[in-house]
Amino acid sequence: MSTSAQHALVHIHSQEHDLHVPVTEISLEDSPGSAPNPPLRIYRTAGPGSDPVVGLPPLREAWIADRGDIETYPGRERNLLDDGPTAIRRGAASREWKGTRPKTLRAAADRTVTQMHYARAGIVTEEMRFVALRENCDVELVRSELAAGRAIIPANINHPESEPMIIGKAFLVKINANIGNSAVTSSIAEEVDKMQWATRWGADTVMDLSTGDDIHTTREWIIRNSPVPIGTVPIYQALEKVNGQASALTWEIFRDTVIEQCEQGVDYMTIHAGVLLRYVPMTAERVTGMVSRGGSIMAGWCLAHHKENFLYTHFDELCEIFARYDVAFSLGDGLRPGSIADANDAAQFAELDTLAELTARAWAHDVQVMVEGPGHIPLHLVRENVERQQELCHGAPFYTLGPLVTDIAPGYDHITSAIGATEIARYGTAMLCYVTPKEHLGLPNKDDVKTGVITYKIAAHAADLAKGHPGAAERDDALSKARFEFRWRDQFALSLDPDTAEAFHDETLPAEAAKTAHFCSMCGPKFCSMRISQDIRDQFGGMSEQEAIAGMEQKSAQFRASGSKVYLDDPTVSNT
Amino acid sequence: MSTSAQHALVHIHSQEHDLHVPVTEISLEDSPGSAPNPPLRIYRTAGPGSDPVVGLPPLREAWIADRGDIETYPGRERNLLDDGPTAIRRGAASREWKGTRPKTLRAAADRTVTQMHYARAGIVTEEMRFVALRENCDVELVRSELAAGRAIIPANINHPESEPMIIGKAFLVKINANIGNSAVTSSIAEEVDKMQWATRWGADTVMDLSTGDDIHTTREWIIRNSPVPIGTVPIYQALEKVNGQASALTWEIFRDTVIEQCEQGVDYMTIHAGVLLRYVPMTAERVTGMVSRGGSIMAGWCLAHHKENFLYTHFDELCEIFARYDVAFSLGDGLRPGSIADANDAAQFAELDTLAELTARAWAHDVQVMVEGPGHIPLHLVRENVERQQELCHGAPFYTLGPLVTDIAPGYDHITSAIGATEIARYGTAMLCYVTPKEHLGLPNKDDVKTGVITYKIAAHAADLAKGHPGAAERDDALSKARFEFRWRDQFALSLDPDTAEAFHDETLPAEAAKTAHFCSMCGPKFCSMRISQDIRDQFGGMSEQEAIAGMEQKSAQFRASGSKVYLDDPTVSNT
Repeated sequence: MSTSAQHALVHIHSQEHDLHVPVTEISLEDSPGSAPNPPLRIYRTAGPGSDPVVGLPPLREAWIADRGDIETYPGRERNLLDDGPTAIRRGAASREWKGTRPKTLRAAADRTVTQMHYARAGIVTEEMRFVALRENCDVELVRSELAAGRAIIPANINHPESEPMIIGKAFLVKINANIGNSAVTSSIAEEVDKMQWATRWGADTVMDLSTGDDIHTTREWIIRNSPVPIGTVPIYQALEKVNGQASALTWEIFRDTVIEQCEQGVDYMTIHAGVLLRYVPMTAERVTGMVSRGGSIMAGWCLAHHKENFLYTHFDELCEIFARYDVAFSLGDGLRPGSIADANDAAQFAELDTLAELTARAWAHDVQVMVEGPGHIPLHLVRENVERQQELCHGAPFYTLGPLVTDIAPGYDHITSAIGATEIARYGTAMLCYVTPKEHLGLPNKDDVKTGVITYKIAAHAADLAKGHPGAAERDDALSKARFEFRWRDQFALSLDPDTAEAFHDETLPAEAAKTAHFCSMCGPKFCSMRISQDIRDQFGGMSEQEAIAGMEQKSAQFRASGSKVYLDDPTVSNT
Repeated sequence: MSTSAQHALVHIHSQEHDLHVPVTEISLEDSPGSAPNPPLRIYRTAGPGSDPVVGLPPLREAWIADRGDIETYPGRERNLLDDGPTAIRRGAASREWKGTRPKTLRAAADRTVTQMHYARAGIVTEEMRFVALRENCDVELVRSELAAGRAIIPANINHPESEPMIIGKAFLVKINANIGNSAVTSSIAEEVDKMQWATRWGADTVMDLSTGDDIHTTREWIIRNSPVPIGTVPIYQALEKVNGQASALTWEIFRDTVIEQCEQGVDYMTIHAGVLLRYVPMTAERVTGMVSRGGSIMAGWCLAHHKENFLYTHFDELCEIFARYDVAFSLGDGLRPGSIADANDAAQFAELDTLAELTARAWAHDVQVMVEGPGHIPLHLVRENVERQQELCHGAPFYTLGPLVTDIAPGYDHITSAIGATEIARYGTAMLCYVTPKEHLGLPNKDDVKTGVITYKIAAHAADLAKGHPGAAERDDALSKARFEFRWRDQFALSLDPDTAEAFHDETLPAEAAKTAHFCSMCGPKFCSMRISQDIRDQFGGMSEQEAIAGMEQKSAQFRASGSKVYLDDPTVSNT
């Protein structure tokens, strides 16, 4: 899976608990003068890798079983309609999953199997230990943040293949990549490939937002191969089951869809329970009305029936279901602004009040919660969003889509949104949903997925640095040191995208010799500021300011004696 | 030059002063129901366009002459060494400029021809009026900001082809694009093409940073074709004249190079006069030492001679020269950090103190000044940079390179730096120097120039929005309205990059019919949140909240009666 020969999959091993946490280790060359550089270990989201038709091994199976609070059961009966109207017309779903499938689990009667429940009971799970090793922090921090609701570990007991990860502001900022087919495009194999591709580049979770054919089967393939938590928006599938007629939706159809997805192993679900009937007219005067698909489905339902949103009225029942599988809520912001003109308006903040109320209700059931946020927000209004959400929702993790800080750059909305994402994460947003260059224009292809993921790794990491997160600057410092010492291969290996860095370098200086050259194409071989800086370090390194100034006159004479050259005329000399 | 058939070059005409200011006018389609949308006029940096071998007409020639304070003179004698050692070996420069060339001008004896001088004397120039029309502001704001030193109009009297533009925090945030050849690559025609390409996409100024062959001739071609101010770093050319030996540099060689460039029409020059001898050792313990090429050339000179930087000791003489042509200082930050580890350190801020002193000295000569800033700064330390600079330098325009907020993404440094650039501009930086995807890896090609410019237009515009700059949101609102109404062609036309927006759309839905379709590929034709939103507006638009709630039950009955469909089953219906 690695993109650099210097990258290796290694494991952090906890002997005490027999845990093996995969990390990527980057080996580095020696500095000039043969001073060795220790290898750098970085967080790895790609897992061990899998053959799509086989799936991943069930890493967490024994942990889940050993807690003694679950039961196996046959599960809900499979229905062709789960794969949509076209599967019924065909009489079959496409490409049924034939790999191994864990037995369907649920909590035993009167038991709760959520990580929040364990944390509140003072139980440290293997999932928490795994996360603490990944985050290089104390496991008590993990447990206490989970118990307080300030962090979640999305870990459905029916997705034992996933590697535990934590979403919360005390931890590394995470990113989500959306994939999924639509009525217009895409196949199952493509979506599995996108999921693997996204995690290879660093996606911490993946949402399957399929709305086209074979929703159930596509999701099965994705979950069985996914080393990261999978999120969904179950109302999308429910709508397909009623042939797209929102008014025909019922709590029973929705409930059945949720159970179907719980049994498959979906780790978190977006639930638009905050779109209340009375909020709907508040969007009428907006420039861009409602832009959330799930939000507008529920608004359509509310209008058709003049009834309160059934996700709101049945919310406690949903909590009971989620508690049985450890599915986390991602409380959807159906009224998020779709343009900067609509940012931070009454509709958006009214819904946030309701999301805060729902957070408390979910916590009463020990169900894990994160809260979704916008959207399109000009930069000076971004901070208010996270601070308001954190206060109202008592620190429940915030999970935002960007936000985009301007509307005028379709084709570049990964960038417009990364600016807002860095700002919002800096002030406490725990997970950022990526935006690809295709936002507003089309469905992302594989290149777009990669661009979106890398762009959001930048935003998340820049926020970690701004927050002073422990150890966050290590990779920056290692890369900067490599840059200063012209260790080109190490620069590539330490990059978020080694392939692109090397390809760009080679466009101007393709020869293999240039990889070890002590110059670059910006200034050419004749002159190099880095080399002068190294001379200065050789002269003044370790001296006090007084010593340095005293030593300058003497060094100046030596410099003149040695020919006073700021660069070497013979470029082959500087290649050594 | 335009990228959309809906873009037209039109002129804002001031009858009072017979001024014609080019703008791009974007025509828009009607909204549904035939409500017309007024055309949107946007700031245009591309000028009228030119044939590279002919050059641009001298727009400002009469304005300059009519002030009666200049003289023509033969100018300095052309020297083959101006084009570097290879021109001497060949006995000729490559491709000498053969187009029209304005007569060489300078201030008449005892006169000062800077826009700052006029502004302080209460004179409103044509340049100021042109700028006020471009910025849609009162000309007195322009004059008073120039007089106070808080803004500059870089406008060498020997570059009459340029369209006046203003750099200052009271005005639209500007962006600069760097071009220029190096010892490794590139031709004159390529560099002229890059300049035209950069201004087409929105570069407000262009810096020619050539360090390779034919520096003088390349610059001549660029200036004669450039509708935007041209900046340079004259020490680069001076170094070539002494065959790259920094210790061989002298004030006389540098002075001669500066006059050569003043006579050609360079509008602003980066001068690394703040790299003082005593500051040099302060960089020794840095992770990345000195990364400014000009800064390290001067540091090398200081070390070789154990003398104070000649740019500092001769600064007043430089001011006298600049005053004679109206060349603006761009005070270089030779000690800027080259990694986040070195951000906001003692060396950087020591130099800034000196740049503040030099700002005051230049102002004493009525010479316009901007101050350059970093570089590599983690997000939480960015704001301090601009606030400190603004305070120390009494509001002189700040002109920063990014800053990059992380070091780990070579290949994506347009993005890492756009995040920092938006932040620093939001707090008052007046101009942003772009960074391309090739930063740290190679020289930008044409695609990289475009990506860098568009990325920085995003940063500058997002900062304008965050500052609440008058009218800044107009384009966002027009695009968002077009998006909401599925006016696809208008969305493209209003985009920073219409070509890319349309190409991305067409990747998923290439048919011409899809351009007028009332849906997009994200959700497909069956369901669309925008359509539901429009239904809501039709129902509740203009109502108070009470009226809306009262009207909901009635509307609900109508909705059920009409079939309760949230989407249309027949996609052809929604194509109308």
